[in-house]
Amino acid sequence: MTGTEQTRAVVRLYFETMSEREWDDFGALVTEDVVYEMPQTGERITGREKYLAFNREYPGDWRLTVTRLIADGATAAASMNFTVGDEELVGLVYFELRGELIARITDFWPEPYVPPAGREHLVELGVTGLDRLSLP
Amino acid sequence: MTGTEQTRAVVRLYFETMSEREWDDFGALVTEDVVYEMPQTGERITGREKYLAFNREYPGDWRLTVTRLIADGATAAASMNFTVGDEELVGLVYFELRGELIARITDFWPEPYVPPAGREHLVELGVTGLDRLSLP
Repeated sequence: MTGTEQTRAVVRLYFETMSEREWDDFGALVTEDVVYEMPQTGERITGREKYLAFNREYPGDWRLTVTRLIADGATAAASMNFTVGDEELVGLVYFELRGELIARITDFWPEPYVPPAGREHLVELGVTGLDRLSLP
Repeated sequence: MTGTEQTRAVVRLYFETMSEREWDDFGALVTEDVVYEMPQTGERITGREKYLAFNREYPGDWRLTVTRLIADGATAAASMNFTVGDEELVGLVYFELRGELIARITDFWPEPYVPPAGREHLVELGVTGLDRLSLP
């Protein structure tokens, strides 16, 4: 069983090496048979080699800032601000570790939408971006 | 500082009482000044009374199943399958506790989208729903 502090350290390193494009160090953090899933598109990538290629080849001069890192035994959840050019995205990522390595990654990229009618009496509007997503 | 196991218990109870529409017990889990944010719509609800009204009034015969609960000190991340009629959604929720109560909730509802071109050589397609979201 992987401990919480070890998980936290590995996930922190995952984002650091990704940010720095240190792909060899990045690849050393995931299992040979790592599974990466994007449930919103139904895409899955299996194996360290393909997952590394996916990251190396990811287009654009993107930058990321980690905004949350919640670790619990062999699992973790993180959120990030991700910018590429003028586009700003929020990425929500879940991790599962096996031993000292990341064995499963699940990524979500929620997008803005128009609030449904009927709750105007309860909500304040216009606070998008105030998720403190830029203030970790 | 709230401990991990206490956080886990409170968040578990949050979803249980929500599922059962036990609104008094549900309301007792959040602070008087609880803040609930939906960054995708820019909506924010402030205060226990309004947040309770929002939940009580939420339309449709919805059902939820918690698929992840990751607790870490006074913070937690959870994911759920949420169905209302024929519609199936995934909800991703972050919690911050103050003492024994939930003081801040941030909700994301990622939606399906078409995979961008250029990574067909790396991905398997058609795995939507295999996030094991129905297998906690």
